[in-house]
Amino acid sequence: MNYQGNTYPFRQDSTFLYFFGIDKPGLAALLDIDHDTETIYGDELGIEDLIWMGTQEKMADMCMKSGINRVQPYEKLASDISKSLAKKQKIHYLPPYRERNVFEISFLLDINHEKVKENASAELIQAVVHQRSVKDKYELSEMETTMNEVTVPAYVEAMKNIRPGMVEYQVSGLIEGIALSKNCTMAYPVICSVNGHILHNHFHGNKLKKDQLLLIDAGAESPMHYATDITRTYPVSGKFSSMQKDIYTIVLQAEKRSVAAIKPGIPYNEVHMQAAMIIAEGLKDLGLMKGNTRDAVSAGAHALFFPHGLGHMIGLDVHDMENLGEDFVGYDQDVKRSDQFGTAYLRLGKKLQTGYTLTVEPGIYFIPVLIDKWKSERQFREFINYEMVSKYLDFGGVRIEENVVVTENAFKIIGNIIPKEVAEIEAKMIS
Amino acid sequence: MNYQGNTYPFRQDSTFLYFFGIDKPGLAALLDIDHDTETIYGDELGIEDLIWMGTQEKMADMCMKSGINRVQPYEKLASDISKSLAKKQKIHYLPPYRERNVFEISFLLDINHEKVKENASAELIQAVVHQRSVKDKYELSEMETTMNEVTVPAYVEAMKNIRPGMVEYQVSGLIEGIALSKNCTMAYPVICSVNGHILHNHFHGNKLKKDQLLLIDAGAESPMHYATDITRTYPVSGKFSSMQKDIYTIVLQAEKRSVAAIKPGIPYNEVHMQAAMIIAEGLKDLGLMKGNTRDAVSAGAHALFFPHGLGHMIGLDVHDMENLGEDFVGYDQDVKRSDQFGTAYLRLGKKLQTGYTLTVEPGIYFIPVLIDKWKSERQFREFINYEMVSKYLDFGGVRIEENVVVTENAFKIIGNIIPKEVAEIEAKMIS
Repeated sequence: MNYQGNTYPFRQDSTFLYFFGIDKPGLAALLDIDHDTETIYGDELGIEDLIWMGTQEKMADMCMKSGINRVQPYEKLASDISKSLAKKQKIHYLPPYRERNVFEISFLLDINHEKVKENASAELIQAVVHQRSVKDKYELSEMETTMNEVTVPAYVEAMKNIRPGMVEYQVSGLIEGIALSKNCTMAYPVICSVNGHILHNHFHGNKLKKDQLLLIDAGAESPMHYATDITRTYPVSGKFSSMQKDIYTIVLQAEKRSVAAIKPGIPYNEVHMQAAMIIAEGLKDLGLMKGNTRDAVSAGAHALFFPHGLGHMIGLDVHDMENLGEDFVGYDQDVKRSDQFGTAYLRLGKKLQTGYTLTVEPGIYFIPVLIDKWKSERQFREFINYEMVSKYLDFGGVRIEENVVVTENAFKIIGNIIPKEVAEIEAKMIS
Repeated sequence: MNYQGNTYPFRQDSTFLYFFGIDKPGLAALLDIDHDTETIYGDELGIEDLIWMGTQEKMADMCMKSGINRVQPYEKLASDISKSLAKKQKIHYLPPYRERNVFEISFLLDINHEKVKENASAELIQAVVHQRSVKDKYELSEMETTMNEVTVPAYVEAMKNIRPGMVEYQVSGLIEGIALSKNCTMAYPVICSVNGHILHNHFHGNKLKKDQLLLIDAGAESPMHYATDITRTYPVSGKFSSMQKDIYTIVLQAEKRSVAAIKPGIPYNEVHMQAAMIIAEGLKDLGLMKGNTRDAVSAGAHALFFPHGLGHMIGLDVHDMENLGEDFVGYDQDVKRSDQFGTAYLRLGKKLQTGYTLTVEPGIYFIPVLIDKWKSERQFREFINYEMVSKYLDFGGVRIEENVVVTENAFKIIGNIIPKEVAEIEAKMIS
């Protein structure tokens, strides 16, 4: 954080967790396919460490639990790799995202550090993505338990406590405190803002005003590091204004119909486009958009209000496997990423399979900087009623998000559903 | 954390905060002493960033608040440094502690990255330490406010809630949640453990048993990043056993008498040795030590029970300026660091000055690994009654800590004192 001895909390690499389950720093693993061996490299703690850190499980015992019976001191990694290179074995590795690991791989494989990321193995990435994408029952149970025991009660508690005059950090602190007191961390920095239209926003210093919406995007991460990722949008006063209810209802429809569309075989970019259609149609009903909805959506005009993707895979990472490369995870030879503003940000576009876990999170936002830009560039004047839009400049934004697993035939929402219907929210908040 | 887009929260470098007050990433500052100019290098956000991050204060406006009127794009830094090097100006820099900055400086100054840390400027370090060590009234007020509004109420709430059967993370989560909901973070990872004798211990998964002590070492960090650092040790049952009370009382005496000894001009290593004497004398009264106390302490026998230093400077870093080098901060030409086990870990040894802020944190621990080691090595058999010590192997540890400012003539404890007398704690906990 601010000096060598005051570190950020260690977060194990998710692929290392997936294959070896050992949540300790300073480890590396080598799978030798030619000789069918697996080795973990890492050092036992010395007596000096044990004085300060207490008795620790031996490396061999930890590794045996993962079915790995070859354990070597860390320094042996370099010589084992040298031997493999001398024998012309190809070394596959996953792309590192920490600077230290870039230089470690550069040293171990004797390649320039600027070449380390591009030389990562596409075959190994694809094999890992293939395996990690489909969640087994233990993984699903971990995610569901975390949702029901931590994320759901945290949201319910937050919803009941929201009052005009509070500051955003009081709400986000309440949620994070509940997660911590249940042995979880947050899977990603909490978004809790009356400026829901600012999508990359971790400022929590605004006072809640009674006419505002509060958008909360937060999810607990289990002790085994499985993520949850939920968004709700609440009226600060406990009651939606008519303008808020109109926009909220469109997003809720888009969210529920997107969830309902999920089944094995459907390309997720189709579900995204369907959500965009629902949003554009709803905005047309309110007079904010105009013209032919299908044409507007194919041209990308809806992205003024819904400029991000419908969702992403979730698992050991909140954006699951994002470190392996978004296109490896979310796209394939059949479905390529769009380059249109808005849809280009869709992280998951390919066909869904049974066992995939993903987020569904449509939203409608009024982003003054973007509105000004498009208006001044005279973009999509045939589809957007800028005069009407100008009445919504201080609206903020609405997003609603669930986590969903693709089942044999359809879908299942992970965990109990946190209240999201207008009437439910107003009943719980006003009481 | 686990991929490029899911980062740990940004923590600005404390020296950058001290001189420039700007809490944003991607900045560098260059002070040209020869030409009496100060320049901050950093880039304005583009329209794309503003769409996602909302309107941001302009670099020039932020810098002007710190009295800096020269602002340049970040890329200008390299050419300005090249020009200075060409003119044979010497470039002083502080030692980097983040890998990225090591490579940045290596690139900017064209020196091998392995030489970057050792080539940091001792003169600049000493000048910064000289200035940052003495806190002004604004800094003291920030620390006192954080203590009284966040750290003190968090401890009081925790103390009232401790019950047998709770798990450590419920207590640590309660404390951290209170800090977060008051717009603070923790200045360092919380220690909250029934194994208080394990000094480097962030495991919070133990259930609290009624006969145990719970040691909590935690402190809020203010939004301006000033730290607080408090330790208390509570009996889980709400009442100290007689054995616990005996040890606790020795530590409390050592702590109070150490605080009382603080005044300008006293070398802090003397206060440390006085605390060691009080601890050794107390342990002798209990039959755990024996022989001449002064001889025992000069030989270092007390370090079996008190193996760490009495305290350290505190300010923008919890171990203030530790990134600049402990010996630059805590020692000088008059007072050199001891190489004796225990006292060698004392971070602050030199003479205290008015305006220094520091921690006072003696402790007594029963560390089975260390006891076994010393016993098997037959260390200090003339001073330690190992037979008696063996009765304390499951005792755990006690530490009590305050933050203190050195005043014109003496000392002042920073903030309101969290209950630490045996009777006070038992009264608050049992009620």
